[in-house]
Amino acid sequence: MSEPFAWEHRIRVDEIDAAGIVFFARYFQWCHEAMATMLDAIAGGYASLILARRIGFPTVHAEADYKAPLRYGDTVRIDVTVEKIGTSSCSLRFDLRRSASALPVAVVRHVVVSSDVDAMRSTPIPDDVRAVLVRHAAAVA
Amino acid sequence: MSEPFAWEHRIRVDEIDAAGIVFFARYFQWCHEAMATMLDAIAGGYASLILARRIGFPTVHAEADYKAPLRYGDTVRIDVTVEKIGTSSCSLRFDLRRSASALPVAVVRHVVVSSDVDAMRSTPIPDDVRAVLVRHAAAVA
Amino acid sequence: MSEPFAWEHRIRVDEIDAAGIVFFARYFQWCHEAMATMLDAIAGGYASLILARRIGFPTVHAEADYKAPLRYGDTVRIDVTVEKIGTSSCSLRFDLRRSASALPVAVVRHVVVSSDVDAMRSTPIPDDVRAVLVRHAAAVA
Amino acid sequence: MSEPFAWEHRIRVDEIDAAGIVFFARYFQWCHEAMATMLDAIAGGYASLILARRIGFPTVHAEADYKAPLRYGDTVRIDVTVEKIGTSSCSLRFDLRRSASALPVAVVRHVVVSSDVDAMRSTPIPDDVRAVLVRHAAAVA
Repeated sequence: MSEPFAWEHRIRVDEIDAAGIVFFARYFQWCHEAMATMLDAIAGGYASLILARRIGFPTVHAEADYKAPLRYGDTVRIDVTVEKIGTSSCSLRFDLRRSASALPVAVVRHVVVSSDVDAMRSTPIPDDVRAVLVRHAAAVA
Repeated sequence: MSEPFAWEHRIRVDEIDAAGIVFFARYFQWCHEAMATMLDAIAGGYASLILARRIGFPTVHAEADYKAPLRYGDTVRIDVTVEKIGTSSCSLRFDLRRSASALPVAVVRHVVVSSDVDAMRSTPIPDDVRAVLVRHAAAVA
Repeated sequence: MSEPFAWEHRIRVDEIDAAGIVFFARYFQWCHEAMATMLDAIAGGYASLILARRIGFPTVHAEADYKAPLRYGDTVRIDVTVEKIGTSSCSLRFDLRRSASALPVAVVRHVVVSSDVDAMRSTPIPDDVRAVLVRHAAAVA
Repeated sequence: MSEPFAWEHRIRVDEIDAAGIVFFARYFQWCHEAMATMLDAIAGGYASLILARRIGFPTVHAEADYKAPLRYGDTVRIDVTVEKIGTSSCSLRFDLRRSASALPVAVVRHVVVSSDVDAMRSTPIPDDVRAVLVRHAAAVA
Protein backbone atom coordinates (compact mmCIF):
# COMPACT_ATOMS: atom_id res chain seq x y z
CA MET A 1 0.00 0.00 0.00
CA SER A 2 1.22 3.46 -0.88
CA GLU A 3 2.20 5.96 1.80
CA PRO A 4 3.84 9.41 1.93
CA PHE A 5 7.62 9.70 1.88
CA ALA A 6 8.73 11.42 5.11
CA TRP A 7 11.74 13.72 5.36
CA GLU A 8 12.94 16.02 8.12
CA HIS A 9 14.96 19.23 8.11
CA ARG A 10 16.33 21.23 11.04
CA ILE A 11 16.04 24.96 10.51
CA ARG A 12 19.48 26.52 10.03
CA VAL A 13 20.59 29.80 11.58
CA ASP A 14 20.97 31.32 8.11
CA GLU A 15 17.44 30.43 6.96
CA ILE A 16 15.93 33.13 9.17
CA ASP A 17 15.09 36.54 7.71
CA ALA A 18 15.10 40.07 9.12
CA ALA A 19 11.61 39.54 10.61
CA GLY A 20 12.94 36.61 12.69
CA ILE A 21 11.09 33.82 10.85
CA VAL A 22 12.17 31.40 8.13
CA PHE A 23 12.23 33.10 4.73
CA PHE A 24 9.27 31.76 2.70
CA ALA A 25 11.26 30.83 -0.42
CA ARG A 26 13.30 28.25 1.47
CA TYR A 27 10.30 25.91 1.76
CA PHE A 28 10.47 25.28 -1.99
CA GLN A 29 14.13 24.25 -1.73
CA TRP A 30 13.38 21.81 1.07
CA CYS A 31 10.51 20.27 -0.88
CA HIS A 32 12.77 19.80 -3.88
CA GLU A 33 15.33 18.16 -1.61
CA ALA A 34 12.64 15.90 -0.13
CA MET A 35 11.68 14.82 -3.68
CA ALA A 36 15.32 14.23 -4.63
CA THR A 37 15.80 12.14 -1.48
CA MET A 38 12.66 10.14 -2.29
CA LEU A 39 14.08 9.45 -5.78
CA ASP A 40 17.32 8.18 -4.27
CA ALA A 41 15.47 4.86 -4.09
CA ILE A 42 16.45 4.31 -7.76
CA ALA A 43 19.79 2.63 -8.51
CA GLY A 44 22.56 5.26 -8.39
CA GLY A 45 20.25 7.81 -6.81
CA TYR A 46 18.80 11.04 -8.18
CA ALA A 47 22.27 12.54 -8.77
CA SER A 48 23.21 9.81 -11.25
CA LEU A 49 19.85 10.26 -12.99
CA ILE A 50 20.83 13.87 -13.74
CA LEU A 51 24.59 13.50 -14.23
CA ALA A 52 24.89 10.09 -15.92
CA ARG A 53 21.50 9.48 -17.52
CA ARG A 54 20.97 13.23 -18.19
CA ILE A 55 17.35 13.20 -17.04
CA GLY A 56 16.12 15.76 -14.54
CA PHE A 57 12.79 16.96 -13.19
CA PRO A 58 12.61 20.73 -13.58
CA THR A 59 9.66 22.38 -11.86
CA VAL A 60 7.06 23.93 -14.18
CA HIS A 61 4.67 24.97 -11.43
CA ALA A 62 5.17 25.58 -7.73
CA GLU A 63 2.83 26.91 -5.09
CA ALA A 64 2.71 27.20 -1.34
CA ASP A 65 0.16 28.14 1.30
CA TYR A 66 1.72 29.24 4.56
CA LYS A 67 -0.21 28.66 7.79
CA ALA A 68 2.23 29.21 10.65
CA PRO A 69 5.79 30.55 10.82
CA LEU A 70 8.90 28.46 11.46
CA ARG A 71 11.70 29.76 13.66
CA TYR A 72 15.27 28.88 14.48
CA GLY A 73 15.21 25.85 16.75
CA ASP A 74 12.32 24.21 14.87
CA THR A 75 12.55 21.01 12.89
CA VAL A 76 10.14 20.62 9.99
CA ARG A 77 8.74 17.29 8.84
CA ILE A 78 7.73 17.01 5.20
CA ASP A 79 5.40 14.27 3.95
CA VAL A 80 5.58 13.83 0.20
CA THR A 81 2.54 12.49 -1.64
CA VAL A 82 2.39 11.94 -5.39
CA GLU A 83 -0.98 13.31 -6.47
CA LYS A 84 -0.85 12.62 -10.21
CA ILE A 85 1.48 10.75 -12.56
CA GLY A 86 1.29 11.41 -16.30
CA THR A 87 3.48 10.29 -19.20
CA SER A 88 6.19 12.82 -18.48
CA SER A 89 4.79 15.08 -15.75
CA CYS A 90 4.03 14.48 -12.13
CA SER A 91 2.26 16.45 -9.36
CA LEU A 92 3.64 16.31 -5.85
CA ARG A 93 2.08 17.51 -2.61
CA PHE A 94 4.22 18.33 0.41
CA ASP A 95 2.66 18.63 3.87
CA LEU A 96 4.95 20.55 6.20
CA ARG A 97 4.52 20.26 9.97
CA ARG A 98 6.56 21.31 12.97
CA SER A 99 8.13 17.99 14.02
CA ALA A 100 7.67 18.56 17.75
CA SER A 101 3.97 19.44 17.73
CA ALA A 102 2.78 18.16 14.33
CA LEU A 103 1.35 21.67 13.78
CA PRO A 104 0.73 22.18 10.04
CA VAL A 105 2.92 25.02 8.80
CA ALA A 106 2.49 24.88 5.04
CA VAL A 107 1.20 22.91 2.08
CA VAL A 108 3.39 23.05 -1.02
CA ARG A 109 2.72 21.66 -4.49
CA HIS A 110 5.20 21.11 -7.33
CA VAL A 111 4.52 19.99 -10.88
CA VAL A 112 7.71 18.57 -12.37
CA VAL A 113 8.42 17.33 -15.89
CA SER A 114 10.77 14.49 -16.74
CA SER A 115 13.25 16.18 -19.08
CA ASP A 116 16.35 15.60 -21.14
CA VAL A 117 18.57 18.13 -19.36
CA ASP A 118 20.76 18.75 -22.41
CA ALA A 119 17.92 19.40 -24.86
CA MET A 120 15.60 20.75 -22.09
CA ARG A 121 12.79 18.76 -23.70
CA SER A 122 10.28 16.49 -21.96
CA THR A 123 10.87 12.75 -22.02
CA PRO A 124 8.68 9.93 -20.59
CA ILE A 125 9.23 9.27 -16.88
CA PRO A 126 11.73 6.37 -16.69
CA ASP A 127 10.26 3.11 -15.35
CA ASP A 128 12.41 3.00 -12.21
CA VAL A 129 11.41 6.54 -11.29
CA ARG A 130 7.76 5.76 -12.01
CA ALA A 131 7.93 2.79 -9.65
CA VAL A 132 9.10 5.07 -6.83
CA LEU A 133 6.39 7.63 -7.59
CA VAL A 134 3.68 4.93 -7.53
CA ARG A 135 4.94 3.78 -4.16
CA HIS A 136 4.13 7.20 -2.71
CA ALA A 137 1.00 7.94 -4.77
CA ALA A 138 -2.12 9.30 -3.06
CA ALA A 139 -4.63 6.56 -2.32
CA VAL A 140 -7.33 6.22 -4.96
CA ALA A 141 -10.78 6.39 -3.37
CA MET B 1 -1.78 56.51 -14.28
CA SER B 2 -0.59 53.33 -12.63
CA GLU B 3 2.16 51.22 -14.15
CA PRO B 4 4.26 48.18 -13.17
CA PHE B 5 7.35 48.63 -11.04
CA ALA B 6 10.35 47.35 -13.01
CA TRP B 7 13.40 45.70 -11.43
CA GLU B 8 16.34 43.84 -12.95
CA HIS B 9 18.60 41.08 -11.65
CA ARG B 10 21.70 39.55 -13.21
CA ILE B 11 21.90 35.80 -12.71
CA ARG B 12 24.75 34.92 -10.35
CA VAL B 13 27.13 32.00 -10.85
CA ASP B 14 25.83 30.39 -7.66
CA GLU B 15 22.16 30.53 -8.67
CA ILE B 16 22.64 27.71 -11.19
CA ASP B 17 21.82 24.12 -10.22
CA ALA B 18 23.29 20.76 -11.20
CA ALA B 19 21.17 20.70 -14.37
CA GLY B 20 22.82 23.93 -15.57
CA ILE B 21 19.78 26.19 -15.19
CA VAL B 22 18.68 28.62 -12.49
CA PHE B 23 17.19 26.76 -9.51
CA PHE B 24 13.42 27.38 -9.51
CA ALA B 25 13.15 28.50 -5.86
CA ARG B 26 15.34 31.55 -6.47
CA TYR B 27 12.61 33.25 -8.51
CA PHE B 28 10.57 33.70 -5.32
CA GLN B 29 13.49 35.42 -3.59
CA TRP B 30 13.95 37.83 -6.50
CA CYS B 31 10.24 38.68 -6.52
CA HIS B 32 10.35 39.40 -2.80
CA GLU B 33 13.36 41.62 -3.40
CA ALA B 34 11.53 43.41 -6.24
CA MET B 35 8.61 44.07 -3.86
CA ALA B 36 10.95 45.31 -1.11
CA THR B 37 12.64 47.62 -3.60
CA MET B 38 9.27 48.93 -4.76
CA LEU B 39 8.37 49.67 -1.11
CA ASP B 40 11.60 51.63 -0.67
CA ALA B 41 9.55 54.52 -2.02
CA ILE B 42 8.21 55.07 1.53
CA ALA B 43 10.20 57.30 3.89
CA GLY B 44 13.02 55.28 5.48
CA GLY B 45 12.53 52.42 3.04
CA TYR B 46 11.23 48.90 3.57
CA ALA B 47 14.00 48.07 6.05
CA SER B 48 12.87 50.77 8.47
CA LEU B 49 9.28 49.58 8.12
CA ILE B 50 10.37 46.18 9.49
CA LEU B 51 13.09 47.26 11.93
CA ALA B 52 11.74 50.56 13.30
CA ARG B 53 7.97 50.41 12.74
CA ARG B 54 7.90 46.59 13.25
CA ILE B 55 5.60 45.98 10.30
CA GLY B 56 6.46 43.38 7.69
CA PHE B 57 4.73 41.64 4.80
CA PRO B 58 5.08 37.89 5.26
CA THR B 59 3.95 35.81 2.31
CA VAL B 60 0.88 33.65 2.92
CA HIS B 61 0.63 32.32 -0.63
CA ALA B 62 3.18 32.04 -3.42
CA GLU B 63 2.97 30.44 -6.82
CA ALA B 64 4.98 30.35 -10.01
CA ASP B 65 4.53 29.11 -13.54
CA TYR B 66 7.81 28.52 -15.36
CA LYS B 67 7.89 28.91 -19.13
CA ALA B 68 11.56 28.99 -20.16
CA PRO B 69 14.80 28.37 -18.27
CA LEU B 70 17.27 31.06 -17.21
CA ARG B 71 21.01 30.47 -17.46
CA TYR B 72 24.21 32.06 -16.24
CA GLY B 73 24.81 35.17 -18.33
CA ASP B 74 21.11 36.08 -18.45
CA THR B 75 19.58 39.15 -16.86
CA VAL B 76 15.97 38.90 -15.78
CA ARG B 77 13.55 41.83 -15.78
CA ILE B 78 10.67 41.69 -13.32
CA ASP B 79 7.57 43.85 -13.72
CA VAL B 80 5.57 44.08 -10.50
CA THR B 81 1.83 44.71 -10.71
CA VAL B 82 -0.45 45.00 -7.69
CA GLU B 83 -3.53 42.93 -8.54
CA LYS B 84 -5.59 43.41 -5.40
CA ILE B 85 -5.35 45.57 -2.27
CA GLY B 86 -7.42 44.67 0.78
CA THR B 87 -7.43 46.03 4.33
CA SER B 88 -4.34 44.10 5.36
CA SER B 89 -3.55 41.76 2.46
CA CYS B 90 -2.31 42.43 -1.02
CA SER B 91 -1.86 40.33 -4.18
CA LEU B 92 1.16 40.93 -6.37
CA ARG B 93 1.90 39.65 -9.85
CA PHE B 94 5.45 39.44 -11.15
CA ASP B 95 6.14 39.06 -14.88
CA LEU B 96 9.65 37.75 -15.46
CA ARG B 97 11.32 38.17 -18.85
CA ARG B 98 14.83 37.71 -20.18
CA SER B 99 16.03 41.32 -20.39
CA ALA B 100 17.83 40.88 -23.72
CA SER B 101 14.98 39.31 -25.69
CA ALA B 102 11.89 40.13 -23.56
CA LEU B 103 11.09 36.40 -23.69
CA PRO B 104 8.62 35.55 -20.88
CA VAL B 105 10.29 33.11 -18.48
CA ALA B 106 7.85 32.95 -15.58
CA VAL B 107 4.80 34.47 -13.93
CA VAL B 108 4.91 34.58 -10.14
CA ARG B 109 2.19 35.59 -7.69
CA HIS B 110 2.56 36.44 -4.00
CA VAL B 111 -0.16 37.21 -1.46
CA VAL B 112 1.35 39.11 1.45
CA VAL B 113 -0.24 40.28 4.70
CA SER B 114 0.67 43.47 6.52
CA SER B 115 1.72 42.15 9.92
CA ASP B 116 3.00 43.22 13.31
CA VAL B 117 6.27 41.26 13.18
CA ASP B 118 6.49 40.91 16.96
CA ALA B 119 2.98 39.57 17.50
CA MET B 120 2.86 37.96 14.02
CA ARG B 121 -0.68 39.27 13.69
CA SER B 122 -2.22 41.10 10.72
CA THR B 123 -2.49 44.87 10.87
CA PRO B 124 -4.03 47.30 8.32
CA ILE B 125 -1.68 48.27 5.49
CA PRO B 126 -0.12 51.62 6.51
CA ASP B 127 -1.19 54.58 4.41
CA ASP B 128 2.25 55.30 2.98
CA VAL B 129 2.62 51.68 1.84
CA ARG B 130 -0.89 51.70 0.41
CA ALA B 131 -0.04 54.79 -1.65
CA VAL B 132 2.90 52.93 -3.23
CA LEU B 133 0.77 49.86 -3.94
CA VAL B 134 -1.92 51.98 -5.61
CA ARG B 135 0.74 53.55 -7.80
CA HIS B 136 1.50 50.13 -9.27
CA ALA B 137 -2.00 48.68 -9.23
CA ALA B 138 -3.34 46.85 -12.28
CA ALA B 139 -5.48 49.08 -14.46
CA VAL B 140 -9.21 48.64 -13.93
CA ALA B 141 -10.89 47.92 -17.28
CA MET C 1 39.99 11.42 25.53
CA SER C 2 39.04 14.18 23.17
CA GLU C 3 38.11 13.48 19.57
CA PRO C 4 36.76 15.42 16.59
CA PHE C 5 33.03 15.93 16.19
CA ALA C 6 31.91 14.32 12.93
CA TRP C 7 29.09 15.63 10.75
CA GLU C 8 27.98 14.74 7.23
CA HIS C 9 26.23 16.71 4.50
CA ARG C 10 24.90 15.52 1.15
CA ILE C 11 25.52 18.02 -1.63
CA ARG C 12 22.26 19.55 -2.80
CA VAL C 13 21.36 20.19 -6.44
CA ASP C 14 21.26 23.94 -5.76
CA GLU C 15 24.75 24.11 -4.20
CA ILE C 16 26.39 23.67 -7.62
CA ASP C 17 27.58 26.70 -9.58
CA ALA C 18 27.78 27.49 -13.28
CA ALA C 19 31.16 25.68 -13.52
CA GLY C 20 29.51 22.43 -12.34
CA ILE C 21 31.17 22.25 -8.92
CA VAL C 22 30.04 23.23 -5.44
CA PHE C 23 30.27 27.01 -4.93
CA PHE C 24 33.18 27.69 -2.55
CA ALA C 25 31.26 29.91 -0.12
CA ARG C 26 28.93 27.08 0.87
CA TYR C 27 31.72 25.30 2.75
CA PHE C 28 31.64 28.05 5.38
CA GLN C 29 27.92 27.58 5.93
CA TRP C 30 28.34 23.82 6.39
CA CYS C 31 31.14 24.34 8.89
CA HIS C 32 28.98 26.74 10.86
CA GLU C 33 26.21 24.17 10.82
CA ALA C 34 28.64 21.47 11.99
CA MET C 35 29.65 23.72 14.91
CA ALA C 36 26.01 24.47 15.77
CA THR C 37 25.22 20.75 15.71
CA MET C 38 28.21 20.04 17.96
CA LEU C 39 26.91 22.66 20.41
CA ASP C 40 23.50 20.98 20.47
CA ALA C 41 25.08 18.84 23.19
CA ILE C 42 24.22 21.62 25.67
CA ALA C 43 20.80 21.58 27.33
CA GLY C 44 18.23 23.19 25.01
CA GLY C 45 20.65 23.13 22.08
CA TYR C 46 22.44 25.91 20.24
CA ALA C 47 19.14 27.53 19.19
CA SER C 48 18.10 28.14 22.80
CA LEU C 49 21.56 29.55 23.54
CA ILE C 50 20.91 32.26 20.93
CA LEU C 51 17.16 32.77 21.35
CA ALA C 52 16.65 32.29 25.11
CA ARG C 53 20.05 32.98 26.66
CA ARG C 54 20.90 35.60 23.97
CA ILE C 55 24.45 34.32 23.52
CA GLY C 56 25.80 33.59 20.05
CA PHE C 57 29.15 32.85 18.43
CA PRO C 58 29.66 35.26 15.55
CA THR C 59 32.64 34.52 13.35
CA VAL C 60 35.45 37.09 13.48
CA HIS C 61 37.82 35.19 11.18
CA ALA C 62 37.19 32.51 8.59
CA GLU C 63 39.54 30.88 6.12
CA ALA C 64 39.52 27.93 3.77
CA ASP C 65 42.01 26.05 1.63
CA TYR C 66 40.40 24.11 -1.18
CA LYS C 67 42.13 20.96 -2.42
CA ALA C 68 39.62 19.11 -4.60
CA PRO C 69 36.19 20.02 -5.96
CA LEU C 70 32.90 18.59 -4.73
CA ARG C 71 30.13 17.73 -7.16
CA TYR C 72 26.45 16.84 -7.06
CA GLY C 73 26.14 13.28 -5.82
CA ASP C 74 28.98 13.68 -3.30
CA THR C 75 28.58 13.54 0.46
CA VAL C 76 31.06 15.53 2.51
CA ARG C 77 32.23 14.50 5.98
CA ILE C 78 33.38 17.27 8.29
CA ASP C 79 35.52 16.57 11.36
CA VAL C 80 35.47 19.46 13.82
CA THR C 81 38.46 19.97 16.10
CA VAL C 82 38.72 22.74 18.66
CA GLU C 83 42.24 24.13 18.28
CA LYS C 84 42.23 26.83 20.93
CA ILE C 85 39.86 27.92 23.71
CA GLY C 86 40.26 31.36 25.28
CA THR C 87 38.11 33.32 27.73
CA SER C 88 35.62 34.37 25.12
CA SER C 89 37.07 33.26 21.78
CA CYS C 90 37.60 29.86 20.27
CA SER C 91 39.42 28.52 17.18
CA LEU C 92 37.88 25.68 15.25
CA ARG C 93 39.37 23.54 12.52
CA PHE C 94 37.18 21.68 10.05
CA ASP C 95 38.60 18.85 7.94
CA LEU C 96 36.39 18.17 4.94
CA ARG C 97 36.62 14.89 3.08
CA ARG C 98 34.54 13.16 0.43
CA SER C 99 32.67 10.57 2.51
CA ALA C 100 33.00 7.76 -0.02
CA SER C 101 36.76 7.96 -0.57
CA ALA C 102 38.00 9.95 2.46
CA LEU C 103 39.73 12.25 -0.08
CA PRO C 104 40.55 15.58 1.62
CA VAL C 105 38.66 18.36 -0.14
CA ALA C 106 39.26 21.34 2.13
CA VAL C 107 40.50 22.59 5.47
CA VAL C 108 38.47 25.41 6.99
CA ARG C 109 39.16 27.46 10.11
CA HIS C 110 36.78 29.70 12.05
CA VAL C 111 37.51 31.95 15.00
CA VAL C 112 34.29 32.66 16.87
CA VAL C 113 33.63 34.93 19.83
CA SER C 114 31.11 34.23 22.55
CA SER C 115 28.88 37.32 22.36
CA ASP C 116 25.85 38.94 23.88
CA VAL C 117 23.77 39.08 20.67
CA ASP C 118 21.79 42.13 21.80
CA ALA C 119 24.77 44.26 22.76
CA MET C 120 27.06 42.55 20.18
CA ARG C 121 29.79 42.54 22.84
CA SER C 122 32.01 39.62 23.87
CA THR C 123 31.11 37.64 26.97
CA PRO C 124 32.97 34.71 28.57
CA ILE C 125 32.22 31.32 27.02
CA PRO C 126 29.47 29.74 29.20
CA ASP C 127 30.60 26.69 31.19
CA ASP C 128 28.32 24.22 29.44
CA VAL C 129 29.57 25.36 26.03
CA ARG C 130 33.17 25.21 27.25
CA ALA C 131 32.66 21.60 28.36
CA VAL C 132 31.55 20.66 24.83
CA LEU C 133 34.49 22.48 23.26
CA VAL C 134 36.96 20.71 25.59
CA ARG C 135 35.46 17.38 24.59
CA HIS C 136 36.49 18.05 20.99
CA ALA C 137 39.76 19.87 21.67
CA ALA C 138 42.88 18.96 19.71
CA ALA C 139 45.13 16.58 21.62
CA VAL C 140 47.97 18.32 23.45
CA ALA C 141 51.27 16.74 22.41
CA MET D 1 46.95 54.55 -13.03
CA SER D 2 45.45 51.51 -11.34
CA GLU D 3 42.60 51.83 -8.85
CA PRO D 4 40.25 49.52 -6.99
CA PHE D 5 37.10 48.26 -8.67
CA ALA D 6 34.10 49.43 -6.65
CA TRP D 7 30.86 47.47 -6.30
CA GLU D 8 27.85 47.93 -4.04
CA HIS D 9 25.32 45.52 -2.60
CA ARG D 10 22.16 46.22 -0.60
CA ILE D 11 21.62 43.74 2.20
CA ARG D 12 18.62 41.52 1.48
CA VAL D 13 16.02 40.51 4.06
CA ASP D 14 17.04 36.86 3.65
CA GLU D 15 20.75 37.48 4.27
CA ILE D 16 20.14 38.02 8.00
CA ASP D 17 20.62 35.15 10.46
CA ALA D 18 18.91 34.21 13.72
CA ALA D 19 21.18 36.62 15.65
CA GLY D 20 19.85 39.55 13.56
CA ILE D 21 23.05 40.26 11.63
CA VAL D 22 24.22 39.27 8.16
CA PHE D 23 25.42 35.65 8.08
CA PHE D 24 29.21 35.68 7.72
CA ALA D 25 29.42 33.26 4.78
CA ARG D 26 27.52 35.64 2.51
CA TYR D 27 30.47 38.05 2.36
CA PHE D 28 32.40 35.49 0.30
CA GLN D 29 29.57 35.26 -2.23
CA TRP D 30 29.43 39.04 -2.60
CA CYS D 31 33.19 39.22 -3.13
CA HIS D 32 32.98 36.57 -5.82
CA GLU D 33 30.20 38.56 -7.46
CA ALA D 34 32.29 41.74 -7.25
CA MET D 35 35.16 39.90 -9.00
CA ALA D 36 32.81 38.51 -11.67
CA THR D 37 31.40 42.00 -12.26
CA MET D 38 34.93 43.41 -12.54
CA LEU D 39 35.73 40.74 -15.17
CA ASP D 40 32.66 41.72 -17.18
CA ALA D 41 35.02 44.28 -18.71
CA ILE D 42 36.22 41.54 -21.09
CA ALA D 43 34.34 41.01 -24.35
CA GLY D 44 31.27 38.81 -23.71
CA GLY D 45 31.64 39.18 -19.95
CA TYR D 46 32.63 36.68 -17.29
CA ALA D 47 29.68 34.39 -18.12
CA SER D 48 30.93 33.79 -21.65
CA LEU D 49 34.42 33.12 -20.30
CA ILE D 50 33.00 30.20 -18.33
CA LEU D 51 30.27 29.00 -20.69
CA ALA D 52 31.82 29.59 -24.14
CA ARG D 53 35.58 29.64 -23.53
CA ARG D 54 35.30 27.12 -20.66
CA ILE D 55 37.69 29.01 -18.41
CA GLY D 56 36.75 29.78 -14.82
CA PHE D 57 38.44 31.07 -11.68
CA PRO D 58 37.75 28.62 -8.86
CA THR D 59 38.82 29.82 -5.43
CA VAL D 60 41.67 27.85 -3.85
CA HIS D 61 41.98 30.02 -0.76
CA ALA D 62 39.53 32.38 0.92
CA GLU D 63 39.76 34.28 4.17
CA ALA D 64 37.89 37.03 5.95
CA ASP D 65 38.37 39.23 8.98
CA TYR D 66 35.15 40.67 10.33
CA LYS D 67 35.26 44.01 12.13
CA ALA D 68 31.68 45.21 12.48
CA PRO D 69 28.31 43.58 11.77
CA LEU D 70 26.03 44.42 8.87
CA ARG D 71 22.27 44.59 9.32
CA TYR D 72 19.18 44.74 7.17
CA GLY D 73 18.93 48.26 5.77
CA ASP D 74 22.69 48.56 5.23
CA THR D 75 24.38 48.82 1.86
CA VAL D 76 27.91 47.48 1.63
CA ARG D 77 30.57 48.92 -0.67
CA ILE D 78 33.31 46.56 -1.82
CA ASP D 79 36.60 47.83 -3.25
CA VAL D 80 38.47 45.14 -5.16
CA THR D 81 42.26 45.35 -5.40
CA VAL D 82 44.42 42.83 -7.23
CA GLU D 83 47.33 42.12 -4.88
CA LYS D 84 49.32 39.63 -6.96
CA ILE D 85 49.10 38.27 -10.51
CA GLY D 86 50.94 35.05 -11.38
CA THR D 87 50.92 32.88 -14.51
CA SER D 88 47.65 31.20 -13.62
CA SER D 89 46.79 32.38 -10.11
CA CYS D 90 45.76 35.72 -8.75
CA SER D 91 45.28 37.21 -5.27
CA LEU D 92 42.41 39.60 -4.67
CA ARG D 93 41.73 41.82 -1.71
CA PHE D 94 38.23 43.09 -0.94
CA ASP D 95 37.67 46.00 1.43
CA LEU D 96 34.10 46.06 2.69
CA ARG D 97 32.63 49.22 4.17
CA ARG D 98 29.16 50.36 5.14
CA SER D 99 28.27 52.64 2.23
CA ALA D 100 26.61 55.30 4.37
CA SER D 101 29.42 55.81 6.90
CA ALA D 102 32.46 54.26 5.17
CA LEU D 103 32.93 52.21 8.36
CA PRO D 104 35.17 49.21 7.59
CA VAL D 105 33.21 46.02 8.19
CA ALA D 106 35.52 43.32 6.80
CA VAL D 107 38.59 42.55 4.76
CA VAL D 108 38.32 39.48 2.53
CA ARG D 109 40.99 37.81 0.43
CA HIS D 110 40.55 35.26 -2.36
CA VAL D 111 43.19 33.37 -4.28
CA VAL D 112 41.73 32.16 -7.57
CA VAL D 113 43.26 29.98 -10.27
CA SER D 114 42.57 30.32 -13.98
CA SER D 115 41.25 26.87 -14.85
CA ASP D 116 39.93 24.78 -17.68
CA VAL D 117 36.50 24.07 -16.15
CA ASP D 118 36.09 20.75 -17.99
CA ALA D 119 39.45 19.29 -17.02
CA MET D 120 39.57 21.25 -13.72
CA ARG D 121 43.24 21.95 -14.46
CA SER D 122 45.04 25.29 -14.24
CA THR D 123 45.63 27.25 -17.43
CA PRO D 124 47.46 30.58 -17.94
CA ILE D 125 45.33 33.65 -17.25
CA PRO D 126 44.00 34.78 -20.67
CA ASP D 127 45.43 38.09 -21.90
CA ASP D 128 42.13 39.97 -21.83
CA VAL D 129 41.50 38.93 -18.23
CA ARG D 130 45.08 39.83 -17.28
CA ALA D 131 44.57 43.32 -18.70
CA VAL D 132 41.55 43.84 -16.42
CA LEU D 133 43.44 42.52 -13.39
CA VAL D 134 46.37 44.87 -14.08
CA ARG D 135 43.96 47.78 -14.27
CA HIS D 136 42.96 47.14 -10.65
CA ALA D 137 46.34 46.02 -9.33
CA ALA D 138 47.64 47.39 -6.04
CA ALA D 139 50.07 50.24 -6.56
CA VAL D 140 53.73 49.17 -6.45
CA ALA D 141 55.58 51.27 -3.87
